[in-house]
Amino acid sequence: MSMQLSNRGINIPASPIRKLVPFADEAKNRGIKVYHLNIGQPDIETPVEMWDRIKNYEEKVLAYGPSNGLLEFRKGLSNYYAKYDVHVSPSEIIITTGGSEALLFAMLATCDAGDEVLVPEPFYANYNGFAVYGDIKVVPVTARAEDGFRLPPKEHFLQKITPRTRAILISNPGNPTGVVYTKEELQVVADIAISHNLYIIADEVYREFVYDGEKYTSIMTISGVEQHAIIADSISKRFSACGARIGNLVSKNKVLMDSIMRFAQARLCPPTLEQVGAIGALDVPESYFEGILTEYQNRRNIIYEGIMSIPGAVCMRPKGAFYVIAKLPIDDGDAFAQWMLEEFSLDGATTMVAPAAGFYATPVLGKDEIRLAYVLKPADLTQAMRVLAAGVEKYRQVKGI
Amino acid sequence: MSMQLSNRGINIPASPIRKLVPFADEAKNRGIKVYHLNIGQPDIETPVEMWDRIKNYEEKVLAYGPSNGLLEFRKGLSNYYAKYDVHVSPSEIIITTGGSEALLFAMLATCDAGDEVLVPEPFYANYNGFAVYGDIKVVPVTARAEDGFRLPPKEHFLQKITPRTRAILISNPGNPTGVVYTKEELQVVADIAISHNLYIIADEVYREFVYDGEKYTSIMTISGVEQHAIIADSISKRFSACGARIGNLVSKNKVLMDSIMRFAQARLCPPTLEQVGAIGALDVPESYFEGILTEYQNRRNIIYEGIMSIPGAVCMRPKGAFYVIAKLPIDDGDAFAQWMLEEFSLDGATTMVAPAAGFYATPVLGKDEIRLAYVLKPADLTQAMRVLAAGVEKYRQVKGI
Repeated sequence: MSMQLSNRGINIPASPIRKLVPFADEAKNRGIKVYHLNIGQPDIETPVEMWDRIKNYEEKVLAYGPSNGLLEFRKGLSNYYAKYDVHVSPSEIIITTGGSEALLFAMLATCDAGDEVLVPEPFYANYNGFAVYGDIKVVPVTARAEDGFRLPPKEHFLQKITPRTRAILISNPGNPTGVVYTKEELQVVADIAISHNLYIIADEVYREFVYDGEKYTSIMTISGVEQHAIIADSISKRFSACGARIGNLVSKNKVLMDSIMRFAQARLCPPTLEQVGAIGALDVPESYFEGILTEYQNRRNIIYEGIMSIPGAVCMRPKGAFYVIAKLPIDDGDAFAQWMLEEFSLDGATTMVAPAAGFYATPVLGKDEIRLAYVLKPADLTQAMRVLAAGVEKYRQVKGI
Repeated sequence: MSMQLSNRGINIPASPIRKLVPFADEAKNRGIKVYHLNIGQPDIETPVEMWDRIKNYEEKVLAYGPSNGLLEFRKGLSNYYAKYDVHVSPSEIIITTGGSEALLFAMLATCDAGDEVLVPEPFYANYNGFAVYGDIKVVPVTARAEDGFRLPPKEHFLQKITPRTRAILISNPGNPTGVVYTKEELQVVADIAISHNLYIIADEVYREFVYDGEKYTSIMTISGVEQHAIIADSISKRFSACGARIGNLVSKNKVLMDSIMRFAQARLCPPTLEQVGAIGALDVPESYFEGILTEYQNRRNIIYEGIMSIPGAVCMRPKGAFYVIAKLPIDDGDAFAQWMLEEFSLDGATTMVAPAAGFYATPVLGKDEIRLAYVLKPADLTQAMRVLAAGVEKYRQVKGI
């Protein structure tokens, strides 16, 4: 008898963002330069305020912190949220190991094995992973590229509600769609949650990245959702500190937060040193974000125009976050992304993309789509898009498409 | 209708190690000094080699690392294990966010909701927590204090095996028991696992902490367990770096490791900066551990003698790790531990302990026991034990025991 995995061990999906890394490594070993548009790893410098706190840390012992995070950091976050009209006390915040753990805790505390979470699709692929951790079912409500991935109509949500439905999970501003939900759209989500007694898990980690004068609205500014709303948050994107693994949960539902505190105790605490750094990052002046916003808007334009220059490609100009879903004239995003790494280069370089099928739960959807992250310098992005366009053309020739 | 939690959200236990922290904070606010024997947070300094690497880190972006951890760190760990006769390649190691995540991943990849894990009891309380994350059932096999918490007889394991049994989980050296399993005991575990096709999850984070000439043996040195054995490990205790949240898994079962890699991808990566620091810590000379071992053996003696000086107290001299389970002449360890923080002080100080009931899965067991961690300096430990002894005497008077 050979050893068996659990069903979840079998079913846990490979990350569409990371599963092709071995092929990228091989390409690099062959001397190819790889433009990483597959992952939201910004090249923006982590604020010096964060580095300074870390490097000046004077404790001799790198000790456990509180399970819910350092109080000073939670106080700082409480002030930070007030700027977005979200009024929460430090006790309504729990620090987590990345936004990842915030999402996991929110799902586990609200859903049992077999329970269901409604998610507008396409969605951040790792929602699938966390669902498998807890044997939870992701039920997609499909948003359409033609509609700019705006919130699907209320009836589409209502049609999917069953006695096992426990929560609605949204990303706003949206990864991978770039959509920024209006207050009216959030009101629709709130109405469904209130009338059907569902939690709302709102992944709002991209709130600083909103373009073209659009306005980010937190779910927690909608009245009546106090007992329903859970924000999953992270400093990864805000402070370009993805490797810090510092995120947090926010909720005014005390019973829920008491439960999540016990999940948090089981894993002891989030990383101590990066919390200390994050406290420093809270002092970053507004001007830091203004410069970044201009930079990302420029990058967004380069990537959008790069896609639109590919004959047959379709995409909507994203309004937030730093991703775009592009439909390409290809047969299979997985095969294409791998081929780009294994077979293609232009002037010694290739472009790594994330196949989009993994961002959908409905089979077949997203098969001819890719997700691109616009996290590189303009010159690199321009090159990456030139390589991508040439790759698409060559791939179509080779495959006879 | 009020919002409901999931059953696991209701059932997730508070950590017996951490749940009394609010009472400790209140005591401190009243000006009471609190000796923390509740938690395995050593006061040994984190090696300068680790701090130096962190403080000299020159990257400008605190970026994501690989989901399975930095290759240089995994190479270093591969060399480290060889010293203990465990021969694994870097690809047979996955870096995790603390030993906590290593345990969680091992359980999720091997067990579905409703599956069972056999665990000698008493056991590290957080095993209960991770089991609840995944809706997994912890099935205790009781070890007896009178037997020095040695491995329960083989038949006691066999009696508890059902069609849902998927794994045996052991801690060696043992938290909270201080037991160090012999090669013969590990052979018994291996025989059961092999004959019943079970995984063995071995929590071996305390391998450096073994006293009185006892010898630590890794489960992976037992022949025939290659496809069964999973080591859960951590640098938290070894390098007194609990707040780093750096652990790792080791297994030679490739299918299992491929699955765990996908769990790892979902949460992106473990903290980057502390991995860099941990690479530095791998250079710590052997003499670092020799000094620490002498120190801990001394601490162990102080705490053991302190317990034995309490009339009616029972405990075995622990042989490894840095915990001891002590039976006290009290009615209820939870009530006693809270009372020590709320009601008692001696010369302005009190001692915080972990009630032991949370380290058992069998109801009633451990109710008159506490767990103590001997992680403080000898002078502090001596004081803490003097306060504890006085507290027990006073508690018995007050409660009329």
